[in-house]
Amino acid sequence: MEVFLHNNRGILLAYDQGLEHGPTDFNERNVDPAFIMELANAGRFNGVVFQKGLAEKYYDHRVPLILKVNGKTNLVKGEPVARQICSVKCAFEVGAKAVGYTIYAGSAHESLMLEEFGRIQEEAHKLGMAAIAWIYPRGEAIKNDTAPEIVAYAARTGLEAGADAVKIKYTGNVESFKWAVKSAGKAKVFMSGGPKAPTEADFLKQVRGAIDAGAAGLAVGRNVWQSSNPLRMASALYKLVIEDRSVDEALRD
Amino acid sequence: MEVFLHNNRGILLAYDQGLEHGPTDFNERNVDPAFIMELANAGRFNGVVFQKGLAEKYYDHRVPLILKVNGKTNLVKGEPVARQICSVKCAFEVGAKAVGYTIYAGSAHESLMLEEFGRIQEEAHKLGMAAIAWIYPRGEAIKNDTAPEIVAYAARTGLEAGADAVKIKYTGNVESFKWAVKSAGKAKVFMSGGPKAPTEADFLKQVRGAIDAGAAGLAVGRNVWQSSNPLRMASALYKLVIEDRSVDEALRD
Amino acid sequence: MEVFLHNNRGILLAYDQGLEHGPTDFNERNVDPAFIMELANAGRFNGVVFQKGLAEKYYDHRVPLILKVNGKTNLVKGEPVARQICSVKCAFEVGAKAVGYTIYAGSAHESLMLEEFGRIQEEAHKLGMAAIAWIYPRGEAIKNDTAPEIVAYAARTGLEAGADAVKIKYTGNVESFKWAVKSAGKAKVFMSGGPKAPTEADFLKQVRGAIDAGAAGLAVGRNVWQSSNPLRMASALYKLVIEDRSVDEALRD
Amino acid sequence: MEVFLHNNRGILLAYDQGLEHGPTDFNERNVDPAFIMELANAGRFNGVVFQKGLAEKYYDHRVPLILKVNGKTNLVKGEPVARQICSVKCAFEVGAKAVGYTIYAGSAHESLMLEEFGRIQEEAHKLGMAAIAWIYPRGEAIKNDTAPEIVAYAARTGLEAGADAVKIKYTGNVESFKWAVKSAGKAKVFMSGGPKAPTEADFLKQVRGAIDAGAAGLAVGRNVWQSSNPLRMASALYKLVIEDRSVDEALRD
Amino acid sequence: MEVFLHNNRGILLAYDQGLEHGPTDFNERNVDPAFIMELANAGRFNGVVFQKGLAEKYYDHRVPLILKVNGKTNLVKGEPVARQICSVKCAFEVGAKAVGYTIYAGSAHESLMLEEFGRIQEEAHKLGMAAIAWIYPRGEAIKNDTAPEIVAYAARTGLEAGADAVKIKYTGNVESFKWAVKSAGKAKVFMSGGPKAPTEADFLKQVRGAIDAGAAGLAVGRNVWQSSNPLRMASALYKLVIEDRSVDEALRD
Repeated sequence: MEVFLHNNRGILLAYDQGLEHGPTDFNERNVDPAFIMELANAGRFNGVVFQKGLAEKYYDHRVPLILKVNGKTNLVKGEPVARQICSVKCAFEVGAKAVGYTIYAGSAHESLMLEEFGRIQEEAHKLGMAAIAWIYPRGEAIKNDTAPEIVAYAARTGLEAGADAVKIKYTGNVESFKWAVKSAGKAKVFMSGGPKAPTEADFLKQVRGAIDAGAAGLAVGRNVWQSSNPLRMASALYKLVIEDRSVDEALRD
Repeated sequence: MEVFLHNNRGILLAYDQGLEHGPTDFNERNVDPAFIMELANAGRFNGVVFQKGLAEKYYDHRVPLILKVNGKTNLVKGEPVARQICSVKCAFEVGAKAVGYTIYAGSAHESLMLEEFGRIQEEAHKLGMAAIAWIYPRGEAIKNDTAPEIVAYAARTGLEAGADAVKIKYTGNVESFKWAVKSAGKAKVFMSGGPKAPTEADFLKQVRGAIDAGAAGLAVGRNVWQSSNPLRMASALYKLVIEDRSVDEALRD
Repeated sequence: MEVFLHNNRGILLAYDQGLEHGPTDFNERNVDPAFIMELANAGRFNGVVFQKGLAEKYYDHRVPLILKVNGKTNLVKGEPVARQICSVKCAFEVGAKAVGYTIYAGSAHESLMLEEFGRIQEEAHKLGMAAIAWIYPRGEAIKNDTAPEIVAYAARTGLEAGADAVKIKYTGNVESFKWAVKSAGKAKVFMSGGPKAPTEADFLKQVRGAIDAGAAGLAVGRNVWQSSNPLRMASALYKLVIEDRSVDEALRD
Repeated sequence: MEVFLHNNRGILLAYDQGLEHGPTDFNERNVDPAFIMELANAGRFNGVVFQKGLAEKYYDHRVPLILKVNGKTNLVKGEPVARQICSVKCAFEVGAKAVGYTIYAGSAHESLMLEEFGRIQEEAHKLGMAAIAWIYPRGEAIKNDTAPEIVAYAARTGLEAGADAVKIKYTGNVESFKWAVKSAGKAKVFMSGGPKAPTEADFLKQVRGAIDAGAAGLAVGRNVWQSSNPLRMASALYKLVIEDRSVDEALRD
Repeated sequence: MEVFLHNNRGILLAYDQGLEHGPTDFNERNVDPAFIMELANAGRFNGVVFQKGLAEKYYDHRVPLILKVNGKTNLVKGEPVARQICSVKCAFEVGAKAVGYTIYAGSAHESLMLEEFGRIQEEAHKLGMAAIAWIYPRGEAIKNDTAPEIVAYAARTGLEAGADAVKIKYTGNVESFKWAVKSAGKAKVFMSGGPKAPTEADFLKQVRGAIDAGAAGLAVGRNVWQSSNPLRMASALYKLVIEDRSVDEALRD
């Protein structure tokens, strides 16, 4: 995971929404993966998250790559499942330093994903790549996926399954997120950026909370590239996360 | 994909309807794959789409071949699924320059097809073949499969999954199809010909719209080989798509 | 397929009913596979159809063998599915010149069988064996499996999937069966013998119709070995199919 | 199968009930597999049936071993299925001369078991081992699993699937069991011992009936090791089956 | 199994609850796997049970390791299933002396787990590792999973499936647990510690009962690391199980 960290912190630019949510998340500018690739570099991100198709056609090696190796559209209803759609070998050949994999904990298909992640993690480690788990409790059995005990369970699931890092949702406050971070043990915790927050300050406060709770950083997409000024947002995150500044300092130019 | 393009445009003659719809689509003449093979050549098509059985028994190498490697009959009800029925190696040996694969996005079985396409795309690339995805949003969750946001999602799904080209339905107007083309990024977009249009002009207008929106071309079957004069239709499409002429010019002899 | 043809016609003795229907189809004599093996030889059949168990224990190489590599009992209810129960390699080693495989088109499990047939066909061709598809439209979605458009669809499905020959039901008249034969293209068509017909003449008229429609021959079981005089029936079929005689001539001693 | 036969007859000591029914079938003495191993030897059985765990920990090579390679508990409800839980290679290495496999004909999962048995039979034959099929018609579709036509169907299913021997239930009388034996062709028929009969004579009459109908012998468990004098019962079976004596002679000391 | 035994007895420190129950089982101290690793060593445990993630990040080789190779969260509803999430090879490389695997006997997915355990057991033995089965009767069909006949069935299932040791629940009294131990034959029996008992004496009485019934020891988690003085509890267990002392002696300092 070292390649994705600076001062033991990291900000990952997530851009797997094209498959997960569809282009409805995009505008004329950010629909273009080349724009994101530029942004990842110019914004000093510690990693960029692509699906195979984007990696093969747009990745330029200037920022470490996390290749998301499973995925699904949000058109499908029912208990969520996302299977492997990119081999670890292919991820390696395209230059990825880590593979990403989503586990829908609590889904009726959970066991398929835990099993698949198990295989992928071992293959990735053999090739010297990290394995990052997106742990999203979801399915009929999950009532509230940001409840503190659910988020902590998600974090722990990633640790137990062998993830080098976990991407989990923020619980809403520092105290409860601390417990999630503690539950993740030696697995690095990255807060999931989530949908665009009402204001930049709102979002930065969440990030500050996660960092204060012990998170290594965040994986952020929409709150950066849906911003009217993505580079300014990237800069604010850099100050806050990597340089450990306050929300106010981060927002100041 | 270069082999399927001329002036960076391409017209593919689709003939997988025998499996997908049954011979009810055919008449005494076009039921014969040899007739289609002739037509593909005489009509200056940039590619011809066959299932394995037709490729093995009728393909004569005069037009580049796209081997459709999955398929299903339309006799089956329920959530659609089509699994691989031809190996990539077999497609290669019969002389195909690309494999085609249908993904029913939104189907309860979507994840099986995304996974299978993932494996097929990697195998095809290893053998120097392109991977073309037919992305058809379908299943109980899909209300309108030509809605602009659905078509754009289909296009994007193909790009993210690693397709070199996507075959998608036309949205009905240039503006909304532009967004689909943009969502497909560097993946080439081929408009799906669909059922026979009321008049030739109607059909050509759709094609013109798709081309104007940035599509590389179209994959067309019934609108050509159900035509009373398939070669005239092929010629019109050639003028319109490859020579970039207007609908009127294309229809003029 | 040449090995199964004489004058480009063929009569195959089907004997997979023991698994498909149970011994209820048999009497004291025809329950014995050795009797069938004798009959296949004495009756000048162009091929005999066995499951693995019979082939291993009774096949004597005097008549070309089609090994049926999938099957099921009729005790099971619900959407039909029959998976591979004999490897292609095993079929080859026991001396088969072709593998047979049933695809229940329209079944909820259709895609499993199309996929499996795809693999088997490729393996068989590698070993120099033919691949014959029994295409039986069946399942809740199928109302009438001898309707002309359904039979034609079955024939076409076999051609598209890569079958060298298809075994399909008779539609009831020459004209509609012609369309099925045409839909099968270069795949040879074998009429399925079906349950014992009321009289020999009734059955022979059907066979004559199928041949007149362009079928290569038939695969027949019960109408031969349930006959009071199987060899006389075999002789009649030989005259009608191989020597292309009329029903009356065939019935004459 | 020769190794399991004496005078072309065989008595197999079945002891897979620990997994199939649980220890409720056992008492303080017969719960111990070592007791069964002794009994198999002292009782001059022609074979003993163990699951992998027992074979590895208790088998002493004095009696030929049939390793049962699939199994399930009776705690599970719904359509029955038992998958392979011991590899053929493992069975071979522990010293088995045959593998045993249960097929629940008529179950919604029948096709899985027919397929698995197909693979196992081929592997076993490669290693010089016999393949014995326990054919138990079961599931919602089966009303009476000892009805003559059902038992005959079971026997035939084993023959067609390539079993060297089939274990089937007794139909209740000689005449109808004859038909089952005939349906099994060259596959040896072993009567299934079933639950403990009211008296020894009752049980021996059934065995005598099966033998008279042409069975090669029986696979017996509870009627021997639940007996107050297992060796006496074994001796009676030996006289009746191997020495072909009457029930009265067999019961006489 | 020898490496896990002392005086033919063993106490295993179980710590797979993070995945099975979530961090809700933990407090600020025992949430840390490093604390558990220390405790395993200082408390003279004969083995420690970790999932892959913990083993890779925290295992220090001072106490023999049992790597739990399947698992699931308790967020999932419906019939329980836990698939393999760590390869046997990976378990071996991280230094495990045994693999652990949970079989939910009675679950609708039982056959998947029995099959998977079968493969894992064979792989483990090849690499010189023991295979320990957690047998938990569970699912709609199971009314009371500590009923004597259910626990005995669980024990026997492990023996039959080839487990070197089984982990089963206590039945509540010595007499009935004796039957379970007898049913397990040569497979070692480890009592499952279960949720924290009201008092230490309560728990130790259960353990004493299991040992008196013939168990080799226990696998204990919450009753140790949720204790206010885990080392004192470990010491009491050591005295009771390894030194075979009474509950009173064990509780005395």
